[in-house]
Amino acid sequence: MGDLLAAVRPAAQRTPISGIIRTANYGRAKGPDVIPLWAGEGDLPTPRFIAEAAAKALYDGETFYTHSRGIPELREAIAGYYEDQFGRPFDPDTFFVTGSGMQAIQLCVALTVGHDEEILIPTPSWPNAAGASTVIGANPVVVPMDEDGGRWVLTVEALERALTPRTRAIFINSPANPTGWTATREEMEALLAFARANELWIIADEIYSRYIWTGATRAPSFLDIAEADDRILWVGTFSKNWAMTGWRMGWIHAPLALKQTLENLIQYSTSGVAPFMQRAGIAAINDGEWFVKSMIERAREGRDIVSEALGGRNRVVYAPPDGALYAFFKVAGIESSQEAAFKLIDEAMVGTAPGTAFGENGEGYVRVCFLRSKDSLSTAMTRIVNYLDSLG
Amino acid sequence: MGDLLAAVRPAAQRTPISGIIRTANYGRAKGPDVIPLWAGEGDLPTPRFIAEAAAKALYDGETFYTHSRGIPELREAIAGYYEDQFGRPFDPDTFFVTGSGMQAIQLCVALTVGHDEEILIPTPSWPNAAGASTVIGANPVVVPMDEDGGRWVLTVEALERALTPRTRAIFINSPANPTGWTATREEMEALLAFARANELWIIADEIYSRYIWTGATRAPSFLDIAEADDRILWVGTFSKNWAMTGWRMGWIHAPLALKQTLENLIQYSTSGVAPFMQRAGIAAINDGEWFVKSMIERAREGRDIVSEALGGRNRVVYAPPDGALYAFFKVAGIESSQEAAFKLIDEAMVGTAPGTAFGENGEGYVRVCFLRSKDSLSTAMTRIVNYLDSLG
Repeated sequence: MGDLLAAVRPAAQRTPISGIIRTANYGRAKGPDVIPLWAGEGDLPTPRFIAEAAAKALYDGETFYTHSRGIPELREAIAGYYEDQFGRPFDPDTFFVTGSGMQAIQLCVALTVGHDEEILIPTPSWPNAAGASTVIGANPVVVPMDEDGGRWVLTVEALERALTPRTRAIFINSPANPTGWTATREEMEALLAFARANELWIIADEIYSRYIWTGATRAPSFLDIAEADDRILWVGTFSKNWAMTGWRMGWIHAPLALKQTLENLIQYSTSGVAPFMQRAGIAAINDGEWFVKSMIERAREGRDIVSEALGGRNRVVYAPPDGALYAFFKVAGIESSQEAAFKLIDEAMVGTAPGTAFGENGEGYVRVCFLRSKDSLSTAMTRIVNYLDSLG
Repeated sequence: MGDLLAAVRPAAQRTPISGIIRTANYGRAKGPDVIPLWAGEGDLPTPRFIAEAAAKALYDGETFYTHSRGIPELREAIAGYYEDQFGRPFDPDTFFVTGSGMQAIQLCVALTVGHDEEILIPTPSWPNAAGASTVIGANPVVVPMDEDGGRWVLTVEALERALTPRTRAIFINSPANPTGWTATREEMEALLAFARANELWIIADEIYSRYIWTGATRAPSFLDIAEADDRILWVGTFSKNWAMTGWRMGWIHAPLALKQTLENLIQYSTSGVAPFMQRAGIAAINDGEWFVKSMIERAREGRDIVSEALGGRNRVVYAPPDGALYAFFKVAGIESSQEAAFKLIDEAMVGTAPGTAFGENGEGYVRVCFLRSKDSLSTAMTRIVNYLDSLG
């Protein structure tokens, strides 16, 4: 058996196990009494009207091969959604439907970063961007973010220190998972200037843009400042806004010049997304605005619950995040985040994600997702706090 | 715009447009009167009982993240299906659910063939195996099959000629798309001996194994002869047997030693398949044997219709295929398969796939898929034959 593993491609062997998955597997084995805050998803299933749109299309026989880059009606719906968000028209041909936001990231890396070339990944970071890079043969390069009192920030100076002649792209996730860092417009302008000056692609992951806690209605976006010839690719997903995490459906927004190349990459990766699922995506966008607003409100309340539980506590370093769905906090005395996550499952019956799942500089931290019902989240936070208190 | 395209990764730029897709796009634009035989799919939608299983799971809220490598119940169902086919037990942990057979191939290449390493691809071949290799940074190396009177065969000698120190894998598709070549057990043993001697992985695409026209109940398989330590990966799909082409759901069967590595590759590519779709996969396998048998019968009748239309005709070189769903025939006087495919759409209102979509040595050929209702297929073949007659 070992011989077979040794015979696989070294880059595949190097692909790490996700620390989130490892913890979730451990927690699932403990049974349903563990409150699962380890994943980046809420506790509501996909709303009925979206499921019905998929079922109707299924019964109507929309089960054949279709356009690799997505059916025109869905690409038009996504373009309309962007028009609503950004107040100007978008060309449906600049949108490419993908089999998850995860695949969108992998395709963007495949499009821009080759063998032995580098992509800068600010960390702590959702581990899958680095994982996707490794799978595709690119080298992810860690760029440590600065931290002060639980607030994290990405500076251009940190990116400059990581830059080499082989750097091809930067992965910018704002609002950020797990840190909640949300670039201001000025910070985005500085990042864009840095990318332009060094001829780097930006892979912009702005999927949490509407989960923003600064008083704005959406987070600043590279779409607010980009020019037509900028090297920027945006990844998107149905997962977070419409409670469709399990569907594996997302999209890329890319310059029109890349249309045929991206279509080819999709064709040779998964060859598109089920047409009946795409019908559900249309329903989500066209009829789901009320639901998105309710999700944002649910997250806002969740953030308050978590902040009340953690704020001002001894031993805990925590700052309420500017955006996204996560509390990322440090606990004095935790030497191993992974051990702490296991113990929180065993002794507090709460599943968290260990900070080390997001990079070495996440050591000492744990992440909880607060997109959850008040009752369940309050119970979870009480359990966590009691456990922390029990540590003395 | 051109500058942006020039700025993408060279391997991505090199990814070719699929000749099948190009032709299908051309044909779809002509409207619904074109009979579409260009794709590898039939004309029946997914049966109702499979759609219902997906809808039920959707309404039951199976819309959350789930196991990257597939839910246990589906992996058990697939293992049971293999037990039925091969008469011995299979470990469910050796099956990995993927977002299409296409993705299964891409993951197998990612697992075995690195940058500047080579995978041997016998051609004429479905173009996506080579496309997936290019996307992942590997070099596909064409191995021309031998042809005689419309019958194609892959020889070990041809593979030996293509072998270099950088060769890591062979893609073996039997029964083959588009040629219908179906390896005998003896040929498989020779291929396996060659792979063993040269420490190559075999990526075995046996998805047409039950579409076999030699009198056998299934085609010979590497599973009939493989030992536990052989470097073989099998790709599978729900597409062809259960009329689920549009679903994008398949699987890999791989040695247990690769379990964690393959799970990681899936995690960082699409992170799994929607759980409600997987429920449909369970229904297909556990309750769909009658449907698979009806599909095989439909294809058998389709093969007869095509063979009657093409057999013994002047200008046409055609041999009834031993397996799979395609007639791949040469027409004297056709200088450009792509031109011929366009003309068949324009003048005969039939969509075929040009032979060049499957490799340079497909020039002069066209492919039709015969998994179709008798009436529609008979009409299509009459149109094709009349068009060929009109060429004089």
